[in-house]
Amino acid sequence: MPELRRDPVLGRWIIIARERRKRPTDFVIDKPEVLGGFCPLCPGNESFTPPEVLAYRNSIATVGNGPNWQVRVVPNKYPALIIEGDLGKEAEGLYDRMNGIGAHEVIIECPDHHDILWDLPVEHVALVFRAYRDRLKDLERDPRFRYVMIFKNHGQAAGASLEHSHSQLIALPVLPRMLVSEFEGAESYYRYKDRCIFCDIIRQEMQQDKRVVCSNEHFIAISPFAPRTPFETWILPKEHGSGFCTHTQTQEMLLSLASLFSDTMKRLETCIPNVPYNYVLHTQPLRSGEMEHFHWHFEIVPKLTSIAGFEWGTGFYINPMPPEEAARYLRESLDS
Amino acid sequence: MPELRRDPVLGRWIIIARERRKRPTDFVIDKPEVLGGFCPLCPGNESFTPPEVLAYRNSIATVGNGPNWQVRVVPNKYPALIIEGDLGKEAEGLYDRMNGIGAHEVIIECPDHHDILWDLPVEHVALVFRAYRDRLKDLERDPRFRYVMIFKNHGQAAGASLEHSHSQLIALPVLPRMLVSEFEGAESYYRYKDRCIFCDIIRQEMQQDKRVVCSNEHFIAISPFAPRTPFETWILPKEHGSGFCTHTQTQEMLLSLASLFSDTMKRLETCIPNVPYNYVLHTQPLRSGEMEHFHWHFEIVPKLTSIAGFEWGTGFYINPMPPEEAARYLRESLDS
Repeated sequence: MPELRRDPVLGRWIIIARERRKRPTDFVIDKPEVLGGFCPLCPGNESFTPPEVLAYRNSIATVGNGPNWQVRVVPNKYPALIIEGDLGKEAEGLYDRMNGIGAHEVIIECPDHHDILWDLPVEHVALVFRAYRDRLKDLERDPRFRYVMIFKNHGQAAGASLEHSHSQLIALPVLPRMLVSEFEGAESYYRYKDRCIFCDIIRQEMQQDKRVVCSNEHFIAISPFAPRTPFETWILPKEHGSGFCTHTQTQEMLLSLASLFSDTMKRLETCIPNVPYNYVLHTQPLRSGEMEHFHWHFEIVPKLTSIAGFEWGTGFYINPMPPEEAARYLRESLDS
Repeated sequence: MPELRRDPVLGRWIIIARERRKRPTDFVIDKPEVLGGFCPLCPGNESFTPPEVLAYRNSIATVGNGPNWQVRVVPNKYPALIIEGDLGKEAEGLYDRMNGIGAHEVIIECPDHHDILWDLPVEHVALVFRAYRDRLKDLERDPRFRYVMIFKNHGQAAGASLEHSHSQLIALPVLPRMLVSEFEGAESYYRYKDRCIFCDIIRQEMQQDKRVVCSNEHFIAISPFAPRTPFETWILPKEHGSGFCTHTQTQEMLLSLASLFSDTMKRLETCIPNVPYNYVLHTQPLRSGEMEHFHWHFEIVPKLTSIAGFEWGTGFYINPMPPEEAARYLRESLDS
């Protein structure tokens, strides 16, 4: 059984994934992982994944385990957390632990092994975001879970171990510390100003127009004022809302998000071919209800190995690329 | 001029190092950096670094720029922050920025290009820690600085761009967010219990003896209860103290620390040959005075590329190696 442990000083939760346990000699340094070969995510290989929890066939939600799907969601075969069991919260002296109960799923974004999501029709990209929404809504019904992290690792340097385009979802019985800090920071601004800080950021960015990458009717992509890495980019809805699900209930919004996301990713890929990246959806906790002070968004963080250092471990970042320049490069990449 | 920027939600400070600015095409993916060749840190090449700020020759502190040094400290030739100027704190709408004023120094740990610090006599390793102490004390006198981060990147995967054994120091006009969270977490425990949480951790670890790697009269090395990565290891003084400098004023303490640190690193290297790692000194802010609730220590974080993923960007970690097992491997590595 995996285990969740809390750092007693920082309040940071860690998953100890015993099922993925290795001997020290397995931590081979700089050995590139073998990608390619047999792919369990490809159509026809459905029996090599755990049974699907959701799939769209002809844009209709189904559960079948056969082929002919457009987007397919399956449990991770090597999950960091497991779905069955109770939380078993307990102390070990001054430490806190609980069982590693949660869900770990893989969102297979397209059938073709070689497709890049952002090159597919916007209707297909919208199906991927619809899968995020539908899984979030379903997992919200499990009272053991407090947060669902949805993220994508693209490229080996960003931690992807499979080539076939996919994102992942982890449902957690605790709130990740980064989100707690974010909610607290946003709340303290709200108490002071009575306004959402992200709404203020969007207003200022649109007015200054120095760090805007692109935008459409409902969404905006910006280089944040204090980016951790070159070309870090956030995508936010222009209208206030703390929950991804609430905002993406209509097909119009899904298409609008898909369109702006694809546009942004194409710009990034044009500036830095084959860029490895992670993105993470920041949304409200499960069952929290609407939060006046928080604003859901995606944070896209390119993983450029040549600059990653001790920064990741200390929360202190050195970035050689001012966001105003990054935004300019991204703006001009497709417009010229 | 480099610039410090604060994320308005998280309070995270970022250095925008314009001097290190690159064009997008310079961010080449997966191109290994060229190490080796001419080394500016080697004896005889003293003129290729900025003038030294401190060196020990025959274990005596000197400033000379000639050879025959044992440990030498020089400003970084490509600094993330610069030493001259005022802070120029200002707002840009709702954002906060200031000039990137600070010090960025390189501690050259030994003259021989191929030496591994932990294999050198303990008296030599103690000189490196003495350099940390002496530079901390000197930089404390500059009222513009609030914190000095001392860290070592070892191995390319951990961000080292020079092969010659060295560590680095960055003096900052702000407190890094990770340290702020650590001070706050420790303080809230102290308010509740009237005891230092790290003292309680040491007591519990010594009593349970499940996660202790090694110890001597004054220091202890443990696998922390909630480690971010396999083989993460902390080194703490057994006696309470919040400041590295106060604790390392005597040669006895420097030798004791050097001895336990070398012992720990040899164990790590035995378990994972050529392990890339970062370590960071966590100590009190400059001029803070003794803090009852904080306890200085080193955090050693191996950088095992095969498991790094989106974790670094979200503060949420999945670790396949329980610390009890890591500690057992490390204990048995040299004892068997």
